[in-house]
Amino acid sequence: MKTLGTYSAYLENALRQERFPDAPANLYDPLRYFLQLGGKRMRPMLSLMACKMYSGSFEQALPAATAIEYFHNFSLIHDDIMDNAPLRRGQATVHEKWNPSIGILSGDVLLVKAYSHLAHYEANLFQTLFKIFNQTAIEVCEGQQMDMDFEQRNEVNEAEYMEMIRLKTSVLLGCALQMGGIVGGANPKDAKLLYTFGEQLGLAFQIQDDLLDLYGQSAEVGKQIGGDVLANKKTLLSISAKQAANPTQLELLQQLEQTLDPVFKVQQTQELYTVLGAQHYCAQQMQLHHQRALNSLEQLENVGSKIELTELAEFLFSRTY
Amino acid sequence: MKTLGTYSAYLENALRQERFPDAPANLYDPLRYFLQLGGKRMRPMLSLMACKMYSGSFEQALPAATAIEYFHNFSLIHDDIMDNAPLRRGQATVHEKWNPSIGILSGDVLLVKAYSHLAHYEANLFQTLFKIFNQTAIEVCEGQQMDMDFEQRNEVNEAEYMEMIRLKTSVLLGCALQMGGIVGGANPKDAKLLYTFGEQLGLAFQIQDDLLDLYGQSAEVGKQIGGDVLANKKTLLSISAKQAANPTQLELLQQLEQTLDPVFKVQQTQELYTVLGAQHYCAQQMQLHHQRALNSLEQLENVGSKIELTELAEFLFSRTY
Repeated sequence: MKTLGTYSAYLENALRQERFPDAPANLYDPLRYFLQLGGKRMRPMLSLMACKMYSGSFEQALPAATAIEYFHNFSLIHDDIMDNAPLRRGQATVHEKWNPSIGILSGDVLLVKAYSHLAHYEANLFQTLFKIFNQTAIEVCEGQQMDMDFEQRNEVNEAEYMEMIRLKTSVLLGCALQMGGIVGGANPKDAKLLYTFGEQLGLAFQIQDDLLDLYGQSAEVGKQIGGDVLANKKTLLSISAKQAANPTQLELLQQLEQTLDPVFKVQQTQELYTVLGAQHYCAQQMQLHHQRALNSLEQLENVGSKIELTELAEFLFSRTY
Repeated sequence: MKTLGTYSAYLENALRQERFPDAPANLYDPLRYFLQLGGKRMRPMLSLMACKMYSGSFEQALPAATAIEYFHNFSLIHDDIMDNAPLRRGQATVHEKWNPSIGILSGDVLLVKAYSHLAHYEANLFQTLFKIFNQTAIEVCEGQQMDMDFEQRNEVNEAEYMEMIRLKTSVLLGCALQMGGIVGGANPKDAKLLYTFGEQLGLAFQIQDDLLDLYGQSAEVGKQIGGDVLANKKTLLSISAKQAANPTQLELLQQLEQTLDPVFKVQQTQELYTVLGAQHYCAQQMQLHHQRALNSLEQLENVGSKIELTELAEFLFSRTY
């Protein structure tokens, strides 16, 4: 996909243009550091693409796209502290490279700077975008809290898990698309459809992540196969496997959670999940949300070419497993 | 001052009206808990008073006042984590009662909720208020970072210290007054004067705090006399004492910083500060900023009675030391 690279280069360049103050260095150096760690810039790219569908150009969506990317990075900096994560994109996290206090405060100021970018629009447009953005921000916090709560619980059901990933990751994709569309001139009906497209794409993408973690090729996934299983993480795979298990199989699953040999643990769990139909079920659910996303895209009216978003959706699901 | 109690009761009641969602409980329970710990509600009160000076009523400033109070509490929740403080207003801090992750995340969502209240105004007014609020939010983060940086440094000069307290505490008072005035209909010149009134009042108040810590009556201050000295905290007192000291006195001050006996340490430092004229100098500086605040108030035009803000300024400096 040629366009992905074009948008990505445009965004990288634009993000480099922001001149954070030199002082206090311990507040702004972490932002300079973290924002150049890269990433796919998927969220701001969605804003640009959605805008271009309506207005024919994408530049006017840059402030909204930047707000989205800053918000995303704010949440990563804070999540990394909460998860005690030493690495992000192969580099030291902010709280590791500096300290947790600096992680908290530089995250805070990045959130505030996200809002500043949104205020670049004229008053009415700003207020419209602001309300979508703020509702999303609240939901992302709720999703992160649910995720932390789930770690402490023995049982999480499928509906709870799906709601958690919707809030933690999918709503921000929806928000990015909806804001981009509105900046470009989308009517309220189209704006809502764009939101649903992003939300459903996000759900499908997260389920794909769960699948790839256990059934992916490690080189492609870029991390150890079965990391979720080794960490006894609750995913749609583990939840749907437990749902389908009879008492004997359930006991086996619980024994495997206590197993120390990593190779044996991953292999046995993988086999049992397949027997229980969890892999198949998750693949179905992924397809379901992917299809819902595409249906939303199809219903868009008064719009130029949908080719970029269609191709992006295809591209996202070209990861093999 | 009768009016203080009236505003305070109105604000307490209004703050109790906000219905945070029940779930996730670990996200919203900390906010319910922290917001009812009380405090003087000084900042939102300033918004209400400023508004009433122009419009004759204060109710329309409630959303701005709430945004200010939420922002203040967000910053307290996060500062308490960074300072590793176990208590706030005599009660357990959020990270103590729950854990640091919950402190980070509930603080985050409180900041987002602060913005939500600001968005209650119509689009143009919202954008005007938003820009003042956001600039202030950035400055408060910068002030907090400077404060943390100063703890790691041997020397901090007077100008640096004054800029730190201006950013960390004073600008939010200025912001509260300016926003309240604008909601009430103040013109840009008056709005700026209101800001300066708050900013200078905040500086005077902080210097008074430094003085009271060492020279106050402990019952009135509500904490141990000399807490700053015992913690070797940099204050205007300690900085101006070092400024005035000759090499022998400077060495004595440095020795006192290492002294273990708390009674001896506080007593000797207090005496030396007085000899060095630090107490007198700080009292002068406090008066200077207090007077600048009153001068700004005097210059206000097109305004109803200034009596409430004048009385408040007097009340704040009635604490004896």
